[in-house]
Amino acid sequence: MPHIDLPEGLPGITSGFAFRPETAKPMRELAEVLLRGPSTLSSGEREMIATFVSTRNDCYFCQTSHRAAAAHHLGGDYQLVDAVRFDYPSAPISKKLKALLAIAGKVQQGGKQVTSEDVALARGEGATDREIHDTVLIAAAFCMYNRYVDGLATFSPVNDRLYDEMGAHMAHHGYTASTNATSAGQP
Amino acid sequence: MPHIDLPEGLPGITSGFAFRPETAKPMRELAEVLLRGPSTLSSGEREMIATFVSTRNDCYFCQTSHRAAAAHHLGGDYQLVDAVRFDYPSAPISKKLKALLAIAGKVQQGGKQVTSEDVALARGEGATDREIHDTVLIAAAFCMYNRYVDGLATFSPVNDRLYDEMGAHMAHHGYTASTNATSAGQP
Repeated sequence: MPHIDLPEGLPGITSGFAFRPETAKPMRELAEVLLRGPSTLSSGEREMIATFVSTRNDCYFCQTSHRAAAAHHLGGDYQLVDAVRFDYPSAPISKKLKALLAIAGKVQQGGKQVTSEDVALARGEGATDREIHDTVLIAAAFCMYNRYVDGLATFSPVNDRLYDEMGAHMAHHGYTASTNATSAGQP
Repeated sequence: MPHIDLPEGLPGITSGFAFRPETAKPMRELAEVLLRGPSTLSSGEREMIATFVSTRNDCYFCQTSHRAAAAHHLGGDYQLVDAVRFDYPSAPISKKLKALLAIAGKVQQGGKQVTSEDVALARGEGATDREIHDTVLIAAAFCMYNRYVDGLATFSPVNDRLYDEMGAHMAHHGYTASTNATSAGQP
């Protein structure tokens, strides 16, 4: 049960967004810019970074919904997303993305964990300053979203079809669409 | 030295904001709503929660600048802010604020650390759902800001007068004012 009286029937973060629209607005905008805005990293890659950090933070709602969003950007390839979530060094992804995931994993633990060597390695694989910046900020932002979702003990449904529909909506319509649309898959 | 080529002469988070204005906008707006927007918690109380979390995350720039902002909201009482930073159970603050700081400290570790008992204790001291929500989100948001500042290894000056001026600006002009204004105290 949620720690506070959140609107019923809305899953995860959307209940916090409905409770406090003033903070929802910038939080939604930040996700939209980071995950779907113009970037040399694909939305699939960025959603995999978000999913990976949410998995490390053990946030069920965020890791499951962003896993689905990532898969929808990648032609439905849930297997690839799960390979990244649980063992990215062995996953069939670019060396650059592996180096960025290493940085994201450090940020999840704490900002000071990122070393010059981590950054040099990513740069050696072709990562730009902007890509390194966005990786750090995606990881940092999901340390916020994950704590928000779990710190309020929001309601997290367990329903694969629902998350698949939610992920499709996140991938194709984004994060600044109305709350109604985001919860379209709700029973 | 910062991990990426950030604009020189800007302290801490302001260099990241100048590097990537698209993400700066929602990050600034979120801080403004959370720390200076309408609330039954004073801005001094909210800045103390932000300072406390930033101290736990060992982020020099954030803890020092928000310490100064909190002090400026509290008539210059740096001593009170430091009492909260380092030993809030003994600090001369309300029982309600102590219970909210306990929740913030749990969120800093991870969202799932917050228990029904923590929330019941805060409610017993008069905290509203909105105050509990905002405490969770301030703590979660500073887990993002702190990781962003340190994950990029931004430049953090060591200069008490500079932070005092920065804190005065943050307290009186807020977070959505121009970057120039925020860095007005720069040498």
